[in-house]
Amino acid sequence: MSAYAELEARFRRMGLIGDAGAILGWDRETMMPEGSNAARSETVATLRVLRHEMLTDAKVGDLIDEAGGDNALDDWQRANLAEMKRSRIHATAIPAGLVAALTKATGECEMVWRNARPASDFAALLPYLKKVLDLTREKATVKSAALGVPPYQALMEEFEPGGRTERIDAIFDDYAAFLPGFLDRVLTHQANRAEPIRPKGPFPIEKQKALGECLMKLIGFDFNHGRLDVSAHPFCGGVPDDVRITTRYTEDDFTQSLMGVLHETGHAMYERQLPERWRWQPVGEARGMSVHESQSLLIEMQVCRGPEFMAFAAPLMRETFGGSGPAWEADSLRRLYSRVARSFIRVEADEVTYPAHVILRYRLEKKLIAGDLALEEVPAAWAEELKGLLGIVPPDDRRGCLQDIHWPDGIFGYFPTYSLGAMTAAQLFDSAKRTDASILPSIARGDFAPLMAWLRGNVHGLGSKLSTDELLTRATGRPLDPAVFKAHLKARYLA
Amino acid sequence: MSAYAELEARFRRMGLIGDAGAILGWDRETMMPEGSNAARSETVATLRVLRHEMLTDAKVGDLIDEAGGDNALDDWQRANLAEMKRSRIHATAIPAGLVAALTKATGECEMVWRNARPASDFAALLPYLKKVLDLTREKATVKSAALGVPPYQALMEEFEPGGRTERIDAIFDDYAAFLPGFLDRVLTHQANRAEPIRPKGPFPIEKQKALGECLMKLIGFDFNHGRLDVSAHPFCGGVPDDVRITTRYTEDDFTQSLMGVLHETGHAMYERQLPERWRWQPVGEARGMSVHESQSLLIEMQVCRGPEFMAFAAPLMRETFGGSGPAWEADSLRRLYSRVARSFIRVEADEVTYPAHVILRYRLEKKLIAGDLALEEVPAAWAEELKGLLGIVPPDDRRGCLQDIHWPDGIFGYFPTYSLGAMTAAQLFDSAKRTDASILPSIARGDFAPLMAWLRGNVHGLGSKLSTDELLTRATGRPLDPAVFKAHLKARYLA
Repeated sequence: MSAYAELEARFRRMGLIGDAGAILGWDRETMMPEGSNAARSETVATLRVLRHEMLTDAKVGDLIDEAGGDNALDDWQRANLAEMKRSRIHATAIPAGLVAALTKATGECEMVWRNARPASDFAALLPYLKKVLDLTREKATVKSAALGVPPYQALMEEFEPGGRTERIDAIFDDYAAFLPGFLDRVLTHQANRAEPIRPKGPFPIEKQKALGECLMKLIGFDFNHGRLDVSAHPFCGGVPDDVRITTRYTEDDFTQSLMGVLHETGHAMYERQLPERWRWQPVGEARGMSVHESQSLLIEMQVCRGPEFMAFAAPLMRETFGGSGPAWEADSLRRLYSRVARSFIRVEADEVTYPAHVILRYRLEKKLIAGDLALEEVPAAWAEELKGLLGIVPPDDRRGCLQDIHWPDGIFGYFPTYSLGAMTAAQLFDSAKRTDASILPSIARGDFAPLMAWLRGNVHGLGSKLSTDELLTRATGRPLDPAVFKAHLKARYLA
Repeated sequence: MSAYAELEARFRRMGLIGDAGAILGWDRETMMPEGSNAARSETVATLRVLRHEMLTDAKVGDLIDEAGGDNALDDWQRANLAEMKRSRIHATAIPAGLVAALTKATGECEMVWRNARPASDFAALLPYLKKVLDLTREKATVKSAALGVPPYQALMEEFEPGGRTERIDAIFDDYAAFLPGFLDRVLTHQANRAEPIRPKGPFPIEKQKALGECLMKLIGFDFNHGRLDVSAHPFCGGVPDDVRITTRYTEDDFTQSLMGVLHETGHAMYERQLPERWRWQPVGEARGMSVHESQSLLIEMQVCRGPEFMAFAAPLMRETFGGSGPAWEADSLRRLYSRVARSFIRVEADEVTYPAHVILRYRLEKKLIAGDLALEEVPAAWAEELKGLLGIVPPDDRRGCLQDIHWPDGIFGYFPTYSLGAMTAAQLFDSAKRTDASILPSIARGDFAPLMAWLRGNVHGLGSKLSTDELLTRATGRPLDPAVFKAHLKARYLA
């Protein structure tokens, strides 16, 4: 067996163990009774450690070195080897003691955060978050050395391979400069039109579920290879051959759950259309978090909140719930689904203001990692940033720096991918429509096949073969260009 | 670390991998969409291979040898070491090539069986079953050499450690001699009484489920550590901290599903009450299949089909389904639940005739493994045995030798555990009632706590610390004594 072939065999095994962990993770959020949480943690940790041991095995390093000189490898195999190398560098960079310390510190911090958030008690969180931050800075330092990039970027690399802070700084500064004036114009424009009427419930959960499943199928979700279930926090889990998305329902309102389902369906289609030939190999996995988020936002924001899809879906909504009157008209529903407002909570923000929440966090976490901001100063810095970006100041930390689980969980460097994803989505959809003129008229008929074919050819089917920049350049002719996103916002919110 | 401590660490990891496989197995039967079957097979096989590699690692053999001389070990640790050794002998006995050949042959044979059974086409199955049998005989030979017991017994060892054919021969021959005369008397006795009236449906599935859950809770099932779901073939799966039982419902009849739920609850309580201190260690696992089956049959057959429980449960059934009239009286329901009849299908047989189906299979499979019976002769031998035991001859192979999945699946040596379990159940329950006079009156009030406490102390909490014989002797004063089962049958069916 060649060194490369042996690597494929080893990574296949790691991939399959990862699949087991993915289904167990889904089960934990959807099916598992609470009492078995401790036992489940042991099981999941064992699988993770096993995989880590396989990846950090010195023999894998030797095989990677050897395979590097193999001239018989084709493009996919070379890309696969590069991804193997990348994941191994990440796995070997951090000493076992630091991994254990971080697991312990984030576990404790998350527990404290669960109470500190509703109590708006940042002081209670502070000592725990400090420990997490100290260890994360340590991790950033060792990763920086291993990867040869600055510390914050080294953290980001886990989620966004190839992501560079200078690029992101430029993109985000540009948006931060654009936003205040644009937001004023959007809000004025919005105020000059009639307010959309909110359909009145109750909306039976069984009907919401049926509508969600119906739209999922139209998008291309194959229920022979996936499921829709309920969990406290919606997510897309499972494995490419068995994608499992979740939502949560409330009888008062169907609109949030429905858009959540469409969002997760976007993630799911990416997983489902990953290259089957490369299943259980690193190159067969999704490219990174900004591309993943671009797929959910392309479906939810670009397509499903747009006028073509709304015109198609409004009658379905009306029929499902037996509604009638102006609240159920496509235009009213569309305006309801594209309402803009200044607000404090990131996950409830609209498409226009969402990047402000991300830019704020990105700026603060970069300073935190660099040591240029003390945790004690975060609430004040938060208020100052939000004031500059949206013109509002959070009344308390619950609606400020305590709202997200990311930092207590030790996740630094993830936030930018949300907005990079939104911008990527705009650019991809713009290109898709230009390349295939049938895409938009098809969506207006509830037919997603042309769009999905384009996405398979330009994003999904490529797995991790190309870098994010290469992928975007191949699909759209250039790397990420925030002008497309801004043009989309102007067209949607000022028309 | 001592050799023993290192063994515990290694087996703990194997146990946790086994837990992952158990949840994935449950998911496959209850939640997984069909399309992901192939991918799931790969995942489950990977976990199995990993565990096998860990167990057969030469280092484990060395550690077992070394730990054998460790005088500091207590009884539990010694028993644990013995179980480690036992599982390792089983794992190392069979060459990898034979394992692979058997996996392939049984996979193919099971596929053919799925069509051959409804078509009653034994000839179609024959060549595939022949391959399975040949390989199983090869396995029996190598296992026989490794374990130092005769070939059939070596196969049985996997399911029933310590099971001996001479003992089982004697027990089964005794029952075979007892049955014909006893059955005639039971049927005459039954014919002289009014037939029970069958409650008329439909019985809404939601109500059946609620009733099942209500009775499960009374028995002691903790829904914070387990679930009840639906699958094509009911089973008890999951892990001790998260026991997952299944059933299937039909609206026409609630009685079968309900007794199925109570049966699986018996299995579940055994798993739940296994010694927590020894979780993920071999000694912490259930003793063997006859003891496991004794726990389901103790709950279903000994307790729940008995007059005390029926008197308690009948009003619950009546209320659940809004029934009234003589069909819902406790005595009628009890007689309905203890109807005896000569029949062809094992899984539908009553408590009295069930052992006949088992004895038949046991006799034939012993001969098949010994080479004293050709597969071609099985249908005729089946008819002859059934005639001798029950006085009936199957009209076709569908209702004869094609009815069970066991042989096509390569499972030889398992059948006897069903009836050994039934007899063990009778003996354990008899002792429990003698030891604690409050058990039966409590059951009559729907209170299972005294019975469960006795079972925890005498069966569940012992894990695999004692052999089956030792366990039964400790709990009842003697090894398996079929007279207790016969006395139970006489009391129930001739009174």
